[in-house]
Amino acid sequence: MGVELKIAVVAPSNRLPDEVPDRVRALVRDRAEIVFHPQCFLSSGHFAGPDQMRENALVEVANDPAIDAVWFARGGYGAGRIAETAIARLGDVAREKTYLGYSDAGFLLAGLHKAGFGRVLHGPMPADIRRIGGEAAVSRAVDALLAPPVADRPQYAFNLTVLSSLLGTAIEPDFSGRALMIEEVDEHAYRIDRMLFHVTSQPAIRRAAGLMLGRCDPVPDNDPDFGEEVEAIARYWCARSHIPYLGRADIGHDADNAVVRFS
Amino acid sequence: MGVELKIAVVAPSNRLPDEVPDRVRALVRDRAEIVFHPQCFLSSGHFAGPDQMRENALVEVANDPAIDAVWFARGGYGAGRIAETAIARLGDVAREKTYLGYSDAGFLLAGLHKAGFGRVLHGPMPADIRRIGGEAAVSRAVDALLAPPVADRPQYAFNLTVLSSLLGTAIEPDFSGRALMIEEVDEHAYRIDRMLFHVTSQPAIRRAAGLMLGRCDPVPDNDPDFGEEVEAIARYWCARSHIPYLGRADIGHDADNAVVRFS
Repeated sequence: MGVELKIAVVAPSNRLPDEVPDRVRALVRDRAEIVFHPQCFLSSGHFAGPDQMRENALVEVANDPAIDAVWFARGGYGAGRIAETAIARLGDVAREKTYLGYSDAGFLLAGLHKAGFGRVLHGPMPADIRRIGGEAAVSRAVDALLAPPVADRPQYAFNLTVLSSLLGTAIEPDFSGRALMIEEVDEHAYRIDRMLFHVTSQPAIRRAAGLMLGRCDPVPDNDPDFGEEVEAIARYWCARSHIPYLGRADIGHDADNAVVRFS
Repeated sequence: MGVELKIAVVAPSNRLPDEVPDRVRALVRDRAEIVFHPQCFLSSGHFAGPDQMRENALVEVANDPAIDAVWFARGGYGAGRIAETAIARLGDVAREKTYLGYSDAGFLLAGLHKAGFGRVLHGPMPADIRRIGGEAAVSRAVDALLAPPVADRPQYAFNLTVLSSLLGTAIEPDFSGRALMIEEVDEHAYRIDRMLFHVTSQPAIRRAAGLMLGRCDPVPDNDPDFGEEVEAIARYWCARSHIPYLGRADIGHDADNAVVRFS
């Protein structure tokens, strides 16, 4: 079989459902060795184990020379609590690896790219295998871990809530000149509007090359109805803040979620 | 009856329910004249009329020498969309007035205080008369409009979501040396945690004298349960960010919501 890529999965946010490892391994066993760190299955309130154990697991696999890539297990909430301190503990070995995730894992992607890590990817995670069409998503993710795509331009991809929440913090990356893709899930239109006010009002964001709108789906019903679709909201805030609106991005909380290399 | 205080009510966020003016006027008619601007009853999607009409109503009453105080009708969402542009249109006459509101109106309170306005108050709004105990809240608010309390220290009071959303924008006020009171309503514990990560990670917030926790109620149930009460979450982020935790504040989305003068 030759030398296989060795991928480690850790869960910096919520606990990974028990069924996921077997399904993912069955799908990709001929292409890569995937190790699910036991931390993925810890549970501590909202999180996949206490902060220190989630941080330690990430630091352990990132600093392990036998591991080629670190794959974040799933989203939820919790990566932001450990991003700054975990990244501060990463050595030179960690810089040679590929990192892949999205949604709440965006806190880590942001901090890693800010810290100068070169192979930081937004894209599907192991837990996505439970979606309709999830096997294709996971397979696409493993392809990207085996051979990270080359970015054809400076770009980032973020969940809007995560992006809004990391602005002004120690893990805020440099947006200058970058195409900034955003996506959202399960947020009301008025909340999307409020977050776009916040995001597009930042001088740092106004230095981006432009904004691209991924899928924001579902948008829960609200009373009163907001009165505008999400793309109109995005166009409004781009126009108001003089940020070019660059059209739609092929990202979202779904099986079609594209791999986007931070660059 | 002598010279009465003249209070103008405008609605920079959501539409005011029709029943409110009669109830408020009945309660305070012997103490002040209250004028509800017709804009309060407009409706445009989510908002009490389009941005331009909400902005115009606020600018009109703020710049009117016959008006002594501007009272924001209710919360919801929308004040942030007009705060920067409305405040830029206010003249010297507007600076002599008292402004009162909370929740979404915090976007305006922040911007007004940043612009050097001296009588900016967090406190009950006309729509609060619909709460149990709401008449006492509205009466307390009118007392504060008649005679703004003197602040015994530098302080602000904000809804946590509003505070989080205005950071880094043109209406962010100076937090240095101030007691910063926060309150929340209807946000999950993980969202409160995420917002406190965002807020306490800001260098500008770390210059505050400390944080005081108002009421965060209700906190919707979540699965999994977050595992910590809101006060423990606030204490955690204060300790982590070296912001003094100064205890509880008597503010919240309720009839007991205290008047807090920005200072």
